[in-house]
Amino acid sequence: MKLLRYGESGKEKIGVQIADKNYDVSAFGGDFNEEFFADNGLARLEEFLKANEGKLIEIPADSRLGAPFARPSKIVCIGLNYRDHAEETGAAIPAEPIIFMKSTTALVGPNDQVMIPRNSVKTDWEVEFGIVIGKKTSYVEESDALDYVAGYVLHNDVSEREFQIERGGTWDKGKGCDTFAPMGPVMTTADEIPDINSVRLWLKINGKTFQDGNTSNLIFNVQQVVSYVSQFMTLLPGDVISTGTPAGVGLGFNPPIYLKPGDIIELGADYLGVQRQEIVAFSK
Amino acid sequence: MKLLRYGESGKEKIGVQIADKNYDVSAFGGDFNEEFFADNGLARLEEFLKANEGKLIEIPADSRLGAPFARPSKIVCIGLNYRDHAEETGAAIPAEPIIFMKSTTALVGPNDQVMIPRNSVKTDWEVEFGIVIGKKTSYVEESDALDYVAGYVLHNDVSEREFQIERGGTWDKGKGCDTFAPMGPVMTTADEIPDINSVRLWLKINGKTFQDGNTSNLIFNVQQVVSYVSQFMTLLPGDVISTGTPAGVGLGFNPPIYLKPGDIIELGADYLGVQRQEIVAFSK
Repeated sequence: MKLLRYGESGKEKIGVQIADKNYDVSAFGGDFNEEFFADNGLARLEEFLKANEGKLIEIPADSRLGAPFARPSKIVCIGLNYRDHAEETGAAIPAEPIIFMKSTTALVGPNDQVMIPRNSVKTDWEVEFGIVIGKKTSYVEESDALDYVAGYVLHNDVSEREFQIERGGTWDKGKGCDTFAPMGPVMTTADEIPDINSVRLWLKINGKTFQDGNTSNLIFNVQQVVSYVSQFMTLLPGDVISTGTPAGVGLGFNPPIYLKPGDIIELGADYLGVQRQEIVAFSK
Repeated sequence: MKLLRYGESGKEKIGVQIADKNYDVSAFGGDFNEEFFADNGLARLEEFLKANEGKLIEIPADSRLGAPFARPSKIVCIGLNYRDHAEETGAAIPAEPIIFMKSTTALVGPNDQVMIPRNSVKTDWEVEFGIVIGKKTSYVEESDALDYVAGYVLHNDVSEREFQIERGGTWDKGKGCDTFAPMGPVMTTADEIPDINSVRLWLKINGKTFQDGNTSNLIFNVQQVVSYVSQFMTLLPGDVISTGTPAGVGLGFNPPIYLKPGDIIELGADYLGVQRQEIVAFSK
């Protein structure tokens, strides 16, 4: 299944995508949130879809899409998880996964505007393959890790490099600004991806390709990342772990290239769909 | 007012503390969560208390206390915010506040057991003065910051120093383990603290004092911290910002002193009450 949410920000309704068409499933009830995942929501939704086959109402084509799930308890990110990206930033290849966290208030829909924060001159992009947790877990073994995954989501891990690197403290300062976590258009359930460690992902700015990677090049793969993070914090249903970005971010160029108002970002990944964001100047 | 929650973990009921006695206010409805703070809950609760004066039922003295509010959207912490603590850890005095984040799954009640994580040999303590946000805000000026605060809470920012410092990446890895965020016993509303930048806080292990500080020694005070964090992420009602710990943590000794099963931590702060935690070994 491909889950989605649509409508006004903060008042999204739930839907599904079937054969590239989006359908409303508000009648199923509730939201795609922690309770939904914890309460066997995916299996119940599958039953609902079978029972309502041919009866679902298509969503108007011009509807805004929200993130495909409600605000999670946390968004955990893995840093420098592609060798080519670690190299372009001048960082050492990590001996074990680097963890940082993104304020969940950064979450927006896949095609919402991305706002350059106040006083920012180094807003950058990062296409990422995101993992959505399906069941509560801690200390999960790599061999069992995928049993705790509900699905996957495309994520633009927008980052302010000055805030992240030059302002003291941890990376979290440059990762959680408003609109810095576009997710969607859909959350694709695990059964629809034949090999999660072989998924192409790409990103273009103003039509020019900047990132073109594949999860096969992850230093720490999906199973390893889920197991690893769960050693340090309990993962809840609906939580997101973003697996890191391949080479081609603005910071990696000499001189670096950063986003400016009017820029158009497009990004995509096999099985997960495509996002498109317009960059806008700061406004409170 | 002093808000509290009591009863079985995950099923807490709401209450208030009046003249050192704890009373149930379940009849008020709901929980002390984002919705409560956003919907003018403090003022409505005050009205409820007036209307029910003398009629409230006292909570049984042996009741477990939970954290005094529901799981927040985020727990943001300030690092190295007391000069003497920065010095004891060998770190430079920060030029601007250091921010890190704690997984909200770490939140527990003030007297719950604190569990040493699997493979941990460096579990440490940190008494802190925590700020609870009352209204959504971003980019708030220092002069307006206190208008967005609901109250204050005592927090033991339990920390695993090897995970935090020696395992690569950001501090978040050593801050979010289960039971690493005891908060409470109460959330004291802002009006009950005459000067938030003059609050004594202390911590003892097995009866011996290790920390004895005062918020008057904060490098960045409460107003500055709220304003600063809000430049990097939107603060939501119910969010917690923990302001940092004074000198006297285990890491600061030579050789360092870390927690072991059976240790008893007691900590307290003026206006915010006292916590007591037994340290227990890892068990899944």
